[in-house]
Amino acid sequence: MARIDGREANELRKVKITRNYLKYAEGSVLIDVGDTRVLCAATIEDKVPPFLKGTGEGWVTAEYSLLPRSTQVRNIREASKGKQSGRTHEIQRLIGRSLRSVVDLKALGERTIWVDCDVIQADGGTRTAAITGAFVALVDAVNSLWTDNSKPFPVKDFLAAVSVGLLPEGVELDLCYAEDCTAIVDMNLVMTGNGQFVEVQGTGEKSPFSKEHLAEMLAVGQEGIEVLFNFQKDALGQLVWKVGREG
Amino acid sequence: MARIDGREANELRKVKITRNYLKYAEGSVLIDVGDTRVLCAATIEDKVPPFLKGTGEGWVTAEYSLLPRSTQVRNIREASKGKQSGRTHEIQRLIGRSLRSVVDLKALGERTIWVDCDVIQADGGTRTAAITGAFVALVDAVNSLWTDNSKPFPVKDFLAAVSVGLLPEGVELDLCYAEDCTAIVDMNLVMTGNGQFVEVQGTGEKSPFSKEHLAEMLAVGQEGIEVLFNFQKDALGQLVWKVGREG
Amino acid sequence: MARIDGREANELRKVKITRNYLKYAEGSVLIDVGDTRVLCAATIEDKVPPFLKGTGEGWVTAEYSLLPRSTQVRNIREASKGKQSGRTHEIQRLIGRSLRSVVDLKALGERTIWVDCDVIQADGGTRTAAITGAFVALVDAVNSLWTDNSKPFPVKDFLAAVSVGLLPEGVELDLCYAEDCTAIVDMNLVMTGNGQFVEVQGTGEKSPFSKEHLAEMLAVGQEGIEVLFNFQKDALGQLVWKVGREG
Amino acid sequence: MARIDGREANELRKVKITRNYLKYAEGSVLIDVGDTRVLCAATIEDKVPPFLKGTGEGWVTAEYSLLPRSTQVRNIREASKGKQSGRTHEIQRLIGRSLRSVVDLKALGERTIWVDCDVIQADGGTRTAAITGAFVALVDAVNSLWTDNSKPFPVKDFLAAVSVGLLPEGVELDLCYAEDCTAIVDMNLVMTGNGQFVEVQGTGEKSPFSKEHLAEMLAVGQEGIEVLFNFQKDALGQLVWKVGREG
Amino acid sequence: MARIDGREANELRKVKITRNYLKYAEGSVLIDVGDTRVLCAATIEDKVPPFLKGTGEGWVTAEYSLLPRSTQVRNIREASKGKQSGRTHEIQRLIGRSLRSVVDLKALGERTIWVDCDVIQADGGTRTAAITGAFVALVDAVNSLWTDNSKPFPVKDFLAAVSVGLLPEGVELDLCYAEDCTAIVDMNLVMTGNGQFVEVQGTGEKSPFSKEHLAEMLAVGQEGIEVLFNFQKDALGQLVWKVGREG
Amino acid sequence: MARIDGREANELRKVKITRNYLKYAEGSVLIDVGDTRVLCAATIEDKVPPFLKGTGEGWVTAEYSLLPRSTQVRNIREASKGKQSGRTHEIQRLIGRSLRSVVDLKALGERTIWVDCDVIQADGGTRTAAITGAFVALVDAVNSLWTDNSKPFPVKDFLAAVSVGLLPEGVELDLCYAEDCTAIVDMNLVMTGNGQFVEVQGTGEKSPFSKEHLAEMLAVGQEGIEVLFNFQKDALGQLVWKVGREG
Repeated sequence: MARIDGREANELRKVKITRNYLKYAEGSVLIDVGDTRVLCAATIEDKVPPFLKGTGEGWVTAEYSLLPRSTQVRNIREASKGKQSGRTHEIQRLIGRSLRSVVDLKALGERTIWVDCDVIQADGGTRTAAITGAFVALVDAVNSLWTDNSKPFPVKDFLAAVSVGLLPEGVELDLCYAEDCTAIVDMNLVMTGNGQFVEVQGTGEKSPFSKEHLAEMLAVGQEGIEVLFNFQKDALGQLVWKVGREG
Repeated sequence: MARIDGREANELRKVKITRNYLKYAEGSVLIDVGDTRVLCAATIEDKVPPFLKGTGEGWVTAEYSLLPRSTQVRNIREASKGKQSGRTHEIQRLIGRSLRSVVDLKALGERTIWVDCDVIQADGGTRTAAITGAFVALVDAVNSLWTDNSKPFPVKDFLAAVSVGLLPEGVELDLCYAEDCTAIVDMNLVMTGNGQFVEVQGTGEKSPFSKEHLAEMLAVGQEGIEVLFNFQKDALGQLVWKVGREG
Repeated sequence: MARIDGREANELRKVKITRNYLKYAEGSVLIDVGDTRVLCAATIEDKVPPFLKGTGEGWVTAEYSLLPRSTQVRNIREASKGKQSGRTHEIQRLIGRSLRSVVDLKALGERTIWVDCDVIQADGGTRTAAITGAFVALVDAVNSLWTDNSKPFPVKDFLAAVSVGLLPEGVELDLCYAEDCTAIVDMNLVMTGNGQFVEVQGTGEKSPFSKEHLAEMLAVGQEGIEVLFNFQKDALGQLVWKVGREG
Repeated sequence: MARIDGREANELRKVKITRNYLKYAEGSVLIDVGDTRVLCAATIEDKVPPFLKGTGEGWVTAEYSLLPRSTQVRNIREASKGKQSGRTHEIQRLIGRSLRSVVDLKALGERTIWVDCDVIQADGGTRTAAITGAFVALVDAVNSLWTDNSKPFPVKDFLAAVSVGLLPEGVELDLCYAEDCTAIVDMNLVMTGNGQFVEVQGTGEKSPFSKEHLAEMLAVGQEGIEVLFNFQKDALGQLVWKVGREG
Repeated sequence: MARIDGREANELRKVKITRNYLKYAEGSVLIDVGDTRVLCAATIEDKVPPFLKGTGEGWVTAEYSLLPRSTQVRNIREASKGKQSGRTHEIQRLIGRSLRSVVDLKALGERTIWVDCDVIQADGGTRTAAITGAFVALVDAVNSLWTDNSKPFPVKDFLAAVSVGLLPEGVELDLCYAEDCTAIVDMNLVMTGNGQFVEVQGTGEKSPFSKEHLAEMLAVGQEGIEVLFNFQKDALGQLVWKVGREG
Repeated sequence: MARIDGREANELRKVKITRNYLKYAEGSVLIDVGDTRVLCAATIEDKVPPFLKGTGEGWVTAEYSLLPRSTQVRNIREASKGKQSGRTHEIQRLIGRSLRSVVDLKALGERTIWVDCDVIQADGGTRTAAITGAFVALVDAVNSLWTDNSKPFPVKDFLAAVSVGLLPEGVELDLCYAEDCTAIVDMNLVMTGNGQFVEVQGTGEKSPFSKEHLAEMLAVGQEGIEVLFNFQKDALGQLVWKVGREG
């Protein structure tokens, strides 16, 4: 009944958040969740996509990539195939959308924040680790611009993400790759610091699932996300008080 | 408080399913949901993707496209841009995954069913209309192969999809484009005939949402999907009894 | 000696032109020629290609596509291959060039009319059906701008197209796909309302052809095009008198 | 009334055909028609496209390209744009189709002949010069395989092409670029040695044209093509008698 | 006269080689040379490119990429541009060629070793750091196959690379990015353990250079490479004796 | 011991430089080096790449291509593959960089010179022949702008290139293709008229090489380049005195 790596059903893997991993980026984080390792870099660019020009609003966008040997079997480099896969598109849209939900784009002004999430090692849950790590890199990048504490800080709330699955053994939190392969239902949750949902994505490819299982997965996921907020706060240190500050 | 087109909060738009719209396809459906019109064609191919060769199992995959002038402003043809957008990838992955959830791929045998969903006119809810219509085309395509009634029919259950949103006025079913633009939360639900979930995708880009709103959206969505099953059954006529039949 | 579908040698298939098939396009037509069905949409854009900027002249351009299951065997979506075939390029160049021949680009002013021809079902003669249908959509699109009847109308004359072929049984009009496959010579004719040629494209891939056969094909084709003008006029109703009007 | 370069209305530009221009190709020709210069190379490959495998039949296919500085204004290299233009596709399809019309593909056997037409300098009429030159290269390439004179030679007849146009001054043969720019109608003719048509392509982009002008262009074009056959025969020398030989 | 970071003219930056950085790769190294950090992963695949099939010989090939925020200004991801730059092609060809020079491809047998070099942080000398690190990853990957010590080990000799430049202040070893920008001549050297050259690439874009400067750069570079061999040997530990072993 | 074509070890193949081969280009050269034949065209464009806008400086850039049948076995056209190979990128970067080393980009002003090198026939040494020929085309193109002799001429010195290799028989100059295939070391040298190096690129793919062999190759290569300068000067005639002229 115990999980493959001995964890409890509602236990996260070991999490480690290393801030300022890169020398040049305005914000950067190396996040480890078990053997999953993602490098998140936030870059500030002083222009916006065409549909926002002149509106005074900013934008947050994400790109995601698996390094070729982050996976058990080498995956072919998308740059050499000449196009990004559907999976890559889907994930980077999810990351961007999630981050935008806690950013006051008007307060940000006409700037784009590019968030690059490059997976160094993939052992399940890369997209949720990317969101959790990218949030911290984003705060650092915004902070590099927000020296004047009288102005409201454009990051409005905390944001973290976790996977939760329905396995033959029951609902389990934060699936590693081996668990992911046997999951009946795979769910990704993104939540804000005040306990609300940003994304709820549950997929029953092996089999559909009941309302009751949905409720259980939501509960277990929320529990896990609350622990992740603590890791983010530990990493951010004194910056914690800036998040959500109204000036 | 009334909706833009006078509907009740939990009321679907007018649905019409035209079977066998195309001459050559093994299964084809033109589905209208309000002013949204999608052409769904199912094609049977006698081979499978490399990862299934020799396993005896089949595959179901989908492609999705907006015709250039299905939208209010002409959208550039992806064939002439030379690549499909992230949105297209995301939607066609959703359609394929959803359909596979009700197909017994082993019973299907080493065949691929290609499901093409081409949007003729887009007024919100194109991906859910595509799933609802594609299911009917899929049944027809499978039926063209399954003449021997003693063998179990590989489509195990009904499948339909609907959108539901949280608007400033409250939770509403089956959003048209104008409503979609003002929605705070946008959710797509895919369910099976026995009342279980296949996909739950809720996104709060404008604002995160509470557990209570989530529950309300799930309830209203399920109600709508049950009505859609009736439209599918009317369209399928005598084929209804084949779905889920074990031989 | 009778044709595969019982027609006379110089007889068109059944033609049906449905105007305003789409809700958003400035002009749109669904044209059926036998089992060939093409959706033609005309869009007005308030800019011109770089080579026309500042000249005061407008432009008309066309795009053409086969839906994947318009054909007997599913054809791979060009958007997913990432490029358009040589056949597609050739056809869309032909459609654009033909339409431009009856438009007064100076009178149109610095605007582009995009004409999208998407083949829903293909049973031979898709490019000629596209031209015949697109002409009607074009008139509607231009009419949406030309409310002031004192200004000359920029569509100068009617335009229609037909295929004609040399088969073992002799010259035949408006080939269906099965006939097209056995044709020795394949010719496409585009003509204007005043009986002049815009395009004459005859190809003898199976065998070269004589001057006499060329003359016969031109005669039979012209006969067919005159019938097509009547279908266009019926469809256009009161707009007929605008075509060629000098203000 | 005289033409820009002093020619008569029905006079070709100076033609020069240099055989065996390249060291490695099975057949190669450098053809000059006035200032238009095209390098044609024919390559024999011992396989056929998938649709011909196992049929015993061969194939002839062509590729066409403008060198970047063949034109007055440098044209961007298609290899660096990453795709071939519609014009290139249209021309290479025409060249391939034309050459196939005089080749007995059954007699050729399961081989492909690749014909590369690279325009060194472009002064109008590049596609017709390419066809006229490519024919000679094709004969040389086939001859390199056909050492046994008792077998029928798979090139059945001569083939050449010319442009003819309707200008304000009347019908003129073999237009140079400056003439091409002022032409009302532009026609390309491809004919066989026995005086039959392979391709008739007339386009009236500036204005439609009458049956009488069509007849005049066909007559003047045929006259020009007969002169081109003489240049081909001079170039081929003793190989002339092989063309059309039945073994 | 001192260098920007206080080094001597012939002094390397700080080097650190971390073996087995990745969990799944057959060989992997994280190499730091000053602030330049490259992740090198070696993967063994049991097939070879078409030109080697059936020859009994193996192949070594490399891919190189800059992570978007490895650089001072974010560089656009090649996967999202859809093609690799000329610079990327040039560098990955250099890495592959260099590694092959010390591998006995016959002894390797029909296998491909893929070497992925992903630059995490770029402060000059990324291609030479990639070669130096990739060599160690390659030895580990080969070692994972070569358990039988009686067979000759297919890596024949050590291999390392360094940059050396001619600056206004004179010849300097191992340029950081700021130095690289002011270099008159930029040279990359790849050498084997026995003191021979594999690649000598010197480029004088700002100004050509004399035979004397060339000789000085070669000498200083060789000195630096000998130090790099020591770092590789320290990292490889007991594997050192396998390199060049004849069984 | 004699070379395959009877040359001495330090003997160039037969060189022929034909100036003004093209009608439209500002400068053009057809260069033959043995059986290698390259067409070099220089085009002047009145704008510069974005990174130079407003700096007052110009740019020189090169493109390189093999015609499909320049080689023994037909090589697939890069325009039809949709991308340029790594080899092409590497060569065109080398050509551009080399030419820029002898051009005073400030004196050139905000203009780009495009140098197109298209290989008509390839028998080894195409990149070095391209550089040697392109230099002459470049001088002609610059001269077309520099009519006022009181202004310094922006081409500062002569530039030529040659290959030299280490073969089993010893060091040999200007390898033909057959020699290139057996070379142990392949080196390309680019030098200026005053005897300095612009590029030194030596590659020992078959085997590494010693300092002594490097010195010998440099000496033999320099000897060959001095002969090439004479061919360039003969071709340029009276323009020779302009090169390096300071006004």
